[in-house]
Amino acid sequence: MKLEEQKLSQKTLYEGKVITVWLCDAKLPNGHVSLREVVHHSGGAAVLLVNGSKVLLERQFRFPYNKTIWEIPAGKLNKGEDPKDAAVRELEEETGYRAEKLEHLIDIYPSPGYTDEIIYIYLADCANMVGRHLDEDEFINAQFVELGEVERMIECGEINDAKTVAAVYKYLRRISKN
Amino acid sequence: MKLEEQKLSQKTLYEGKVITVWLCDAKLPNGHVSLREVVHHSGGAAVLLVNGSKVLLERQFRFPYNKTIWEIPAGKLNKGEDPKDAAVRELEEETGYRAEKLEHLIDIYPSPGYTDEIIYIYLADCANMVGRHLDEDEFINAQFVELGEVERMIECGEINDAKTVAAVYKYLRRISKN
Repeated sequence: MKLEEQKLSQKTLYEGKVITVWLCDAKLPNGHVSLREVVHHSGGAAVLLVNGSKVLLERQFRFPYNKTIWEIPAGKLNKGEDPKDAAVRELEEETGYRAEKLEHLIDIYPSPGYTDEIIYIYLADCANMVGRHLDEDEFINAQFVELGEVERMIECGEINDAKTVAAVYKYLRRISKN
Repeated sequence: MKLEEQKLSQKTLYEGKVITVWLCDAKLPNGHVSLREVVHHSGGAAVLLVNGSKVLLERQFRFPYNKTIWEIPAGKLNKGEDPKDAAVRELEEETGYRAEKLEHLIDIYPSPGYTDEIIYIYLADCANMVGRHLDEDEFINAQFVELGEVERMIECGEINDAKTVAAVYKYLRRISKN
């Protein structure tokens, strides 16, 4: 079955600080024209910082869910910024840790039905505390948690964040093979 | 550090077929008021269908990325629909397999900075082919792929879809422990 769609038009509905919303017309494989709603996002960068048997997690209030959740450190790419640079920058801003060396771990597409965001995830196992510098309006707590406890938290639904789940499982698979 | 934000107002910017966009004012822990852009989504349901050493994957064109990607079968919840019912329904519509019994595997928050979507993921290991019934404007190919090959595809970046990564890794961890 032919699967490809072709973009016929694109209209910007909203241009915000985190997202831009496009309404597009797409030509489907059967020739029909259908509306496609796209949430454009500049991309995210995240770091799984490992220290011995522990990894660094954050507590952050997430407005869409109206609750505080667990996540690995992450943030939005600045325009034109390299994802790896963004990962180092966000880690340091949010937690005070400056990663010496980052290794690419995995990239994920969070919800491909409507967003074009890519979340680039890196692994760091060496970092120096240089002091964090949160924006005035940013509120985050960070702490190291035992990896076994983090897996338990995923298993029982205390951690649901997609990038955190992907990063932790990919890392667990890697170390279980070595 | 206090983390909670409080919703002060909510304005509907757009109400579409897949997403609704809200612009909200939030009171931050320091008393400042900040804009929050929220993509409201009714939620997704997905199934990892296992048949021996193989799992069922789909190829689907995803307009936001302008390419065809690999994913496990999934779809959007209808208003008020139970996620498990949606998972069974979408699996059958898209692939023709009717799952006999679903087990909850994991729920993920795809991108908590701006969307309230929850993707509910189930595991099925028994299903009958009853024939698929795609919507007229839906174009999907489905095939069983060896689990080892699926993990390789995740490792080398051929599979990036967050729900697929989460489902496959969670399942791999489970069977590696048994």
